[in-house]
Amino acid sequence: MKGRETKETILNAALGFARLHGLEGLSIGRLAKGVGLSKSGLFAHFNSKETLQLNVLQRGVEEFLEAVVRPAIKEPRGEPRLRALLDRWLRWAAGDGSRGKGGCLFLGAAVELDDQPGALRDYLVNSQRQWISTLARAVTIAQTAGDISPDVDTEQMAFEIYSIMMAFHLYHRLLRDPDASMRARKAFDKLLAASR
Amino acid sequence: MKGRETKETILNAALGFARLHGLEGLSIGRLAKGVGLSKSGLFAHFNSKETLQLNVLQRGVEEFLEAVVRPAIKEPRGEPRLRALLDRWLRWAAGDGSRGKGGCLFLGAAVELDDQPGALRDYLVNSQRQWISTLARAVTIAQTAGDISPDVDTEQMAFEIYSIMMAFHLYHRLLRDPDASMRARKAFDKLLAASR
Repeated sequence: MKGRETKETILNAALGFARLHGLEGLSIGRLAKGVGLSKSGLFAHFNSKETLQLNVLQRGVEEFLEAVVRPAIKEPRGEPRLRALLDRWLRWAAGDGSRGKGGCLFLGAAVELDDQPGALRDYLVNSQRQWISTLARAVTIAQTAGDISPDVDTEQMAFEIYSIMMAFHLYHRLLRDPDASMRARKAFDKLLAASR
Repeated sequence: MKGRETKETILNAALGFARLHGLEGLSIGRLAKGVGLSKSGLFAHFNSKETLQLNVLQRGVEEFLEAVVRPAIKEPRGEPRLRALLDRWLRWAAGDGSRGKGGCLFLGAAVELDDQPGALRDYLVNSQRQWISTLARAVTIAQTAGDISPDVDTEQMAFEIYSIMMAFHLYHRLLRDPDASMRARKAFDKLLAASR
């Protein structure tokens, strides 16, 4: 039990660290200091930097599923579920304080890993594809529910929803644009209206 | 003349380096090695890491203006100019080989700098705002030319064009999705059609 708690403490610290300094910036030494362990004590839980990085990504995905995907897919199928996916994603990306400081773990990792083949990149790509599939599936279900026209290309609409989220991120995090959320919601409303 | 050439060589190497390893990863030591100078020889041209980073960003912006903005705004006002901005941006972001390896300097810098106040971040934010203004202005001109409805909110449409570009980047660079360009063009065509 004690070992599992320590592992949790390390992972939480590592996640916060990676949000601020990137996966590459995850220094075993600094992290060990932050949680009050020796370097070898930390290595007893994660036997390589890559294992730690992979666990951080997995933990980030788990938090994302818990905060965004699982609650949203409990909403009624069709437009309400699509709106819930966007709403929860926007709140997630805006940061509600509970996650601590730093940017999006996945966007940071995307930039770090886009030219680095390996297990980390594979995991990130796979998780992003799953997220996009979740969006496409919600569109397909909305077609069955009659909220989205059967003529709509579901993969295309998933791309367009994803687009809005990416631009929101840059407007909000980099430009600190106070209208970022309004712009994203307006773009989404237009997309929904054009897809009925 | 010799000094200016050396400075150019350093800057080009630094730009390639930053595309691969980020602005933070710009190591004066490694860079000096790469161009065959001593560390102090490199410092004679750029007296701090921050000066070098800022010069790299400025050079990146200059290349972007030269490859995307200036040729596009020579196209006839209205839809042709908007299309040229997207087309040239897509080719830029896809990388045509001439720029060498690595990802988008600006997206990389955005992730690195989003929590780091200072001259570098200010410069990046300012250059992104100018790019978004260029898009919004092209929309306004397209309204005057009669290609875009006067009811369209130009800032909103700039956000939506920017959205498509951001998603293209992730689909192309991270997911290596062969349909990335087709998705981006289709989203842009839909946006134009809805804005007439």
